[in-house]
Amino acid sequence: MAKEKLVKAITSMDEDFAKWYTDVVSKAELMDYSSVKGCMIIRPYGWAIWENIQKILDGMFKETGHENVSMPMFIPESLLQKEKDHVEGFAPEVAWVTHGGNDELEEKMCVRPTSETLFCDHYKNIIQSWRDLPKLYNQWCSVVRWEKTTRPFLRSREFHWQEGHTIHATAEEAQAETIQMLNIYADFAEKHLAIPVIKGVKTEKERFAGAVDTYTIEAMMHDGKALQSGTSHFFGDGFAKAFGIQFTDKENKLATPFQTSWGVSTRLIGAIIMTHGDDSGLVLPPAIAPIQLIVVPIASHKEGVTEKATEVYTRLKKVCRAKIDVSDNSPGWKFAEYEMKGVPLRLELGPRDIENNQCVLVRRDNGEKVVVSLDELETVVPEMLEKVRDGLYNKALANRTEKTYTATSLEEMVEIADNKPGFIKAMWCEDRACEEMLKEKAGVSSRCMPFEQEEISQTCVCCGKPAKKLVYWGKAY
Amino acid sequence: MAKEKLVKAITSMDEDFAKWYTDVVSKAELMDYSSVKGCMIIRPYGWAIWENIQKILDGMFKETGHENVSMPMFIPESLLQKEKDHVEGFAPEVAWVTHGGNDELEEKMCVRPTSETLFCDHYKNIIQSWRDLPKLYNQWCSVVRWEKTTRPFLRSREFHWQEGHTIHATAEEAQAETIQMLNIYADFAEKHLAIPVIKGVKTEKERFAGAVDTYTIEAMMHDGKALQSGTSHFFGDGFAKAFGIQFTDKENKLATPFQTSWGVSTRLIGAIIMTHGDDSGLVLPPAIAPIQLIVVPIASHKEGVTEKATEVYTRLKKVCRAKIDVSDNSPGWKFAEYEMKGVPLRLELGPRDIENNQCVLVRRDNGEKVVVSLDELETVVPEMLEKVRDGLYNKALANRTEKTYTATSLEEMVEIADNKPGFIKAMWCEDRACEEMLKEKAGVSSRCMPFEQEEISQTCVCCGKPAKKLVYWGKAY
Repeated sequence: MAKEKLVKAITSMDEDFAKWYTDVVSKAELMDYSSVKGCMIIRPYGWAIWENIQKILDGMFKETGHENVSMPMFIPESLLQKEKDHVEGFAPEVAWVTHGGNDELEEKMCVRPTSETLFCDHYKNIIQSWRDLPKLYNQWCSVVRWEKTTRPFLRSREFHWQEGHTIHATAEEAQAETIQMLNIYADFAEKHLAIPVIKGVKTEKERFAGAVDTYTIEAMMHDGKALQSGTSHFFGDGFAKAFGIQFTDKENKLATPFQTSWGVSTRLIGAIIMTHGDDSGLVLPPAIAPIQLIVVPIASHKEGVTEKATEVYTRLKKVCRAKIDVSDNSPGWKFAEYEMKGVPLRLELGPRDIENNQCVLVRRDNGEKVVVSLDELETVVPEMLEKVRDGLYNKALANRTEKTYTATSLEEMVEIADNKPGFIKAMWCEDRACEEMLKEKAGVSSRCMPFEQEEISQTCVCCGKPAKKLVYWGKAY
Repeated sequence: MAKEKLVKAITSMDEDFAKWYTDVVSKAELMDYSSVKGCMIIRPYGWAIWENIQKILDGMFKETGHENVSMPMFIPESLLQKEKDHVEGFAPEVAWVTHGGNDELEEKMCVRPTSETLFCDHYKNIIQSWRDLPKLYNQWCSVVRWEKTTRPFLRSREFHWQEGHTIHATAEEAQAETIQMLNIYADFAEKHLAIPVIKGVKTEKERFAGAVDTYTIEAMMHDGKALQSGTSHFFGDGFAKAFGIQFTDKENKLATPFQTSWGVSTRLIGAIIMTHGDDSGLVLPPAIAPIQLIVVPIASHKEGVTEKATEVYTRLKKVCRAKIDVSDNSPGWKFAEYEMKGVPLRLELGPRDIENNQCVLVRRDNGEKVVVSLDELETVVPEMLEKVRDGLYNKALANRTEKTYTATSLEEMVEIADNKPGFIKAMWCEDRACEEMLKEKAGVSSRCMPFEQEEISQTCVCCGKPAKKLVYWGKAY
């Protein structure tokens, strides 16, 4: 009964995917709406996911020589304006601080929408010689962009992210850094989040404000829409020139350094939800699940059940993030609750199981039940968690494969875009007019020019002129 | 030569303590000034100290059942105004956001100076029954207070901290939480930062805006001044009433819950510097030192030295945060550099040491040199790190004992305050007028009424009326 009630509490995915999504983020207690319009509260369960993401990524950044720093959250107007393209991109959507206490500020400041300008200002101070290069910095923080429409985790006025900012003696080194970080993002998404991604480069239209090249990982959500899940930018020496950053090179000559920036945000939580979730709620990849295994005693009023379950839980705590629920809720209610919260494995243990020295393990991703000897739990549980990860990845990959189409003419593109949500692979002449035409006629944007190029046809899907690049097109979050 | 140059680069403590402090934070590369007035950049070495502090404290919070959350960084004006005392305390020093992009906001918002109002707003949404209590929440973030004068780590317009916010069914439970968290702060300061602290309660004048009681840990800096290093507040039901937070209790009646909040900030880094530092620079307690041991090869051009040093470093990496410096700087330059950075232990290894299967370990806190067999490093190094912690603690305690005075009359108080920087223990009648008089005449503020009360005399140090409390007085940062 209770289970039914909980399950009914969320809209089904097929009925209304957007409603399903907002139901899940609320019912799984990931977030709550706040009195601050467009900003959200990330609740303990949601924040624990972010902490797990941070921990793994931070380790990957540090292994590759990056160091964390903390920059101010404010940017004086004059600083924001130093790089022309950058200010044009961001000024229309920043929050402005105009007063400190009762006094009007001499110069207004925005709350950082991103921190390139602050890092440049700092680099100018601390870099003199080639010996000071490279600087491989990162910061974990929140930033603010004054969005008109918002959705939990996907687009909010304040959001948490990490922003890496590096500076190098040569363009080649900066380029290599840009690609290295994109690869780290892709590896993280695929291995730890079980989300397959397409790696590629953005078209000029979709580039970050001020970048020479923007690289991206694009994921496909369950509904066929694209989610840009991480970006890495190569800046050339544009910012350095705008900020007057110079260094003395090994030949004792003044030179201009090259920069990069790269970031992922709490959007990744949105990606997890929309890639793996189902009509029972959240489904979490084990690597970032706050609870990896929930122990549910069955018929716990019977003698010895709670004790045995607690013993099993105590053992499993040492091999995974385990939890036990000994509340007086019914097992059915508990099943539904931890399904809603996306816990990868459930361990059921009742009197008959105890008699047989066994328990039942249930996978959240496919509902598979396995009877396991209590003696083998320490080896079986980590293996099953690995299987859940693989199951999630394969399911997501199958969804993407199924929903990836090719088009060789505009009519075909429109026909697919109107009827089959997904990625559309099509050739492009590199003319921005065609890109805009596709947006207008088919409602799709270019997601990326994938590293893995193919020649689907020889002509641009839009204008028929000779094609230069294969592009992934799609509707995006 | 190089060493001399580095050492000379900082002012001596006795000559000008304030100048010494700003020299150390810059030369040890803890921070840099930014173009954002009153805000600072925390550099990798400084941020790594904060990360170590966070990691230990976060573990202590989680062990005691606390969960991390993330609240918005903005507070709408109407929300800030709900609790009368609170808004009076903070409104004069907040930064106001008035515009989003090009549009003026309907209601201006401040950047949070502290988040009581946001937590209350959230608690009102999520608490219905006694089953929802307690909530034991914490967040790591930065807050903004529009200070007129600022000093790195001690007082800046933006600063990083953690703020715990809990809500309970009964006053007793909230009171116990307040004391528990103060004890956690004290244990952390003494054990991990090697800073002895006085635990006590603030006078009404010094209480947090909106609190019924504010508890504090007070530390004494090397120059005899006090630094408030952590506070824990009991709010009673004042905030809950102002925000209309109610819950159904076990008897099914509507009741009002009780709240607490508690915080420590990057001020702790200031406390570390001013408690343990010396004329060679920073001295870091091992628990939070980014580098606990630096390996310096001596005569590294000689065959086998760098190899052997690297071997030793590789072994020691497993038992502590070790680093090796194989740069072409001279050993003397390296000594000075890592002394400036406060690295607790230095390991010197030269050709003769290698012949004798030994090395020299040098303690940063007292310069003590010990010759150690290379076979025993894994046991000796952790022991020596523990000794450095004890040495630092004892030195700080001796400084505090030496600079703690007692006064029984106003004249005596003024005489001590004018000539002997330190804590002054004196009795007080609990009349605010006397507290203000002491500020005016002796320039001291009440630091706290310590938990460990003594009866120094029977009359108030100021007015001569019967005394009620022993108070620690002092000049403070």
